[in-house]
Amino acid sequence: MRIDGRATRTIWPAPQGHAVCVLDQRCLPHRVEILRLSTLAQVVRAIVDMAVRGAPLIGVTAAYGLALQAGQDPSDGVLADAAQRLKRARPTAVNLAWAVDRAMQIVGLLPAGQRAGAAWDFAAQLADADVATNAAIGDQGLALLRALRPRERGRLHLLTHCNAGWLGTVDWGTALAPIYKAHAAGMAVHVWVDETRPRNQGASLTAFELREEGIAHTVIADNAGGHLMQQGRVDAVIVGCDRVTARGDVCNKIGTYLKALAAHDNGVPFYVAMPMSTLDRTLQDGVREVPIEERDAREVTHIVGRDARGDAVEVQLVPDGSAAANPAFDVTPARLVTALVTERGVVAADAAGIASLGS
Amino acid sequence: MRIDGRATRTIWPAPQGHAVCVLDQRCLPHRVEILRLSTLAQVVRAIVDMAVRGAPLIGVTAAYGLALQAGQDPSDGVLADAAQRLKRARPTAVNLAWAVDRAMQIVGLLPAGQRAGAAWDFAAQLADADVATNAAIGDQGLALLRALRPRERGRLHLLTHCNAGWLGTVDWGTALAPIYKAHAAGMAVHVWVDETRPRNQGASLTAFELREEGIAHTVIADNAGGHLMQQGRVDAVIVGCDRVTARGDVCNKIGTYLKALAAHDNGVPFYVAMPMSTLDRTLQDGVREVPIEERDAREVTHIVGRDARGDAVEVQLVPDGSAAANPAFDVTPARLVTALVTERGVVAADAAGIASLGS
Repeated sequence: MRIDGRATRTIWPAPQGHAVCVLDQRCLPHRVEILRLSTLAQVVRAIVDMAVRGAPLIGVTAAYGLALQAGQDPSDGVLADAAQRLKRARPTAVNLAWAVDRAMQIVGLLPAGQRAGAAWDFAAQLADADVATNAAIGDQGLALLRALRPRERGRLHLLTHCNAGWLGTVDWGTALAPIYKAHAAGMAVHVWVDETRPRNQGASLTAFELREEGIAHTVIADNAGGHLMQQGRVDAVIVGCDRVTARGDVCNKIGTYLKALAAHDNGVPFYVAMPMSTLDRTLQDGVREVPIEERDAREVTHIVGRDARGDAVEVQLVPDGSAAANPAFDVTPARLVTALVTERGVVAADAAGIASLGS
Repeated sequence: MRIDGRATRTIWPAPQGHAVCVLDQRCLPHRVEILRLSTLAQVVRAIVDMAVRGAPLIGVTAAYGLALQAGQDPSDGVLADAAQRLKRARPTAVNLAWAVDRAMQIVGLLPAGQRAGAAWDFAAQLADADVATNAAIGDQGLALLRALRPRERGRLHLLTHCNAGWLGTVDWGTALAPIYKAHAAGMAVHVWVDETRPRNQGASLTAFELREEGIAHTVIADNAGGHLMQQGRVDAVIVGCDRVTARGDVCNKIGTYLKALAAHDNGVPFYVAMPMSTLDRTLQDGVREVPIEERDAREVTHIVGRDARGDAVEVQLVPDGSAAANPAFDVTPARLVTALVTERGVVAADAAGIASLGS
C-alpha cells in the first residue's frame, strides 16, 4: 500500500549487500524510518522489540533471518540454533514457527553450499505468497462487506482492533484488506480504530495506514467500542489473529475478546481475517492451550509519543512503586466469532468450517 | 485517607478567606498540588477541566461553588444562573445536579443576607455526609468480600475500573471503600487496576491511592481484564457509578460495560458501589435515556505523563490528520450487575431491589 502516495512493502531485499530492509514500525506514525538487517541477531532483535510485528510479517522476517544466518554459516548445528532463537522471539504467533520450520525443512535437504540461496529464495517466495494471500482475503471479505446492511444509509461503519493492516503483513493486511478493497471499489467506509493499549498499534499504525490511503477513520479508546455498538454505530467488527485453533478459538491482541463479547451482545457481526498459516490444528481449546506472551510491564507504565517540538518522548503514566502486568494476547472463544475470512473462503468458526478449508 | 501517611480529604474550607481548597487531581500521581478556589468561575473550571472529578466529589464542589457565588451576590437571578453553569459543567453525573438543586432549595427559602452562610453550611454538611455514606458503603461491601471464596487461598483478587476511590469522593471512596475496610480488617487483598483510558484515572489515581494505603495492586491495560477473568485470576469486579436508573442500569466510566460482559461470561461477580445520591429514579432504560458526555478528542490523541527529568509532558499519540472520538461513559444493563452496594444495604440491580432501598 502507500506511504506519501508511493507504493511500498514492509520488507524487501536491501539494494546492495546480503541484507533485508524493513520499515521500523516503532517510529510510526510520526516518522518513516527504514531499518537494515544483515545478521540473525539484528533480525531477532527487530522481532523482539517489535520494529516488525504482525503475525504474517514476523514469519517472513524470520525466514529472511534464517537465510542471513545460512549466508554466514550454513552448518546444521548453527541453523538449528538460529531456528530456536527465532521461534522464541515471539512465542504466540504460529506463523513464525511455521515459517522457520518450513525453511529448515528446505535447507535440511540441501548441501551446505546451496542452503543460503535456497533459504533466501524461500523467504522471497513467502513474502510474495503473503501478498497474494492477503489480496485473496481482501476479496473474500469484500463480499461479506457488500452483504451488510449499514444502519447509516450508504456508509459502512467498521470497527477494528490493533493493527491487522498491511504493516502487519508484507502488503494489503488481513483485517484491513477487505476495507482497502471496498474503498477501491468505491464503497463509503468509515473505520473506528481502537487505539489498542498498551502499544497503541491502532492509534499509531492502523490510523497511519488509513490516513495514507485516504480512508475515513476515527481513533477511539479501547473502552469505547462497547458503547458505540450499543448505540448502533458499528455495522461489523473485523480483526486479525495470531493463532486459531482447530475448533475456531481465536488468539489475537489483548482486548479482542472484550470486543467480541460486545459484538455478540449487540448483534453485530464479528469477523476474523485468518490466513491459513495462522491455523494451528494441533490445538482445540484456545483459552486453555494457547501460550500467552507476557510482555515487559514498561509497555503499560510508560508510553512514547511526539512532544510539542516533534521529538519522540517517553513518559511515565503510573506512580513509582506501582506494579503493572502486560499479557499481550487473549482468546476469543469460537462461539463469539461470526465467521473466519480466509484466502480460501469464508467459513464458520467451528471444526466443520475449518475442516472444509482443506489441509 | 492518607497521602504520605497524613490523613486528608479531597476538599476542605481554606484556612483563611472565603474559599475552598481541593487536591488538583490533574497533577497526580506524580505531584501533590492544592488548588484554592474562591470564585464560581474557578469552581466551574475545576469541574470542567477535571481538577476535581468523581460523581460525589463534584457534587460537593458544586455546592461550595454556589456558596462562593452567594457570598458575592446572593440575588435570585445570579444564583439561578450559577446553578445552571454548575449543572452544565458535567452533564452525566446526577450528583452534581442533585447537590445544586438541594442548595438552591435551601437558599431559596432564605432572605438574601442569610444565603451565603446557609449555602456554605450545606456544602460542609454534604461533605461530611459523603464521608459517612462512603464509610457505610465500605461496611456493606466488606460483608460481600468476606463471603467470596477466593480462588487463590487466603488472597482476594479484585478488579476495578477508573477511580471510584477516595479521590472521587470526599473520603473513603465508593468502590474502593470496601477494599480499604477489608485491608484495615487484615484481609489479604490484591487489586487489578484498569488504567482507564483516555484519562488514565486508574493508572494515575487508583494506583496512587492504593500505594499510599499500602494495598497490593497491579496496573493493567483496559484490554487485559477479560483475559484475566478467563484465566480465573479475578474473584470479583467492583466499580463505582455516575448514574443508576430505577431499573438498575448503571452509567459509569467508558469501558465499564465491557468488563461487565466479561464478568458475566466468566461467572465473576460484578458489584457496583452506589451512593443513594447517584440513583436517578426518573430514568428506566439507561442505554436509551442517559445523556453521554462527549469530551474533547484531545484526551484520546494526546496524553500527559512524567518525562525522564520529572516534568509533566504532553505527547501526541495519533498521526496528524486522524480524527478521534471520546465518549466518556457507557451504560451497563442491569442484567449484567450482580448487586448494588449502597449505604443502606446490598440489593439486586432491578426495580424491586432499588424500591426496597426506600425513597
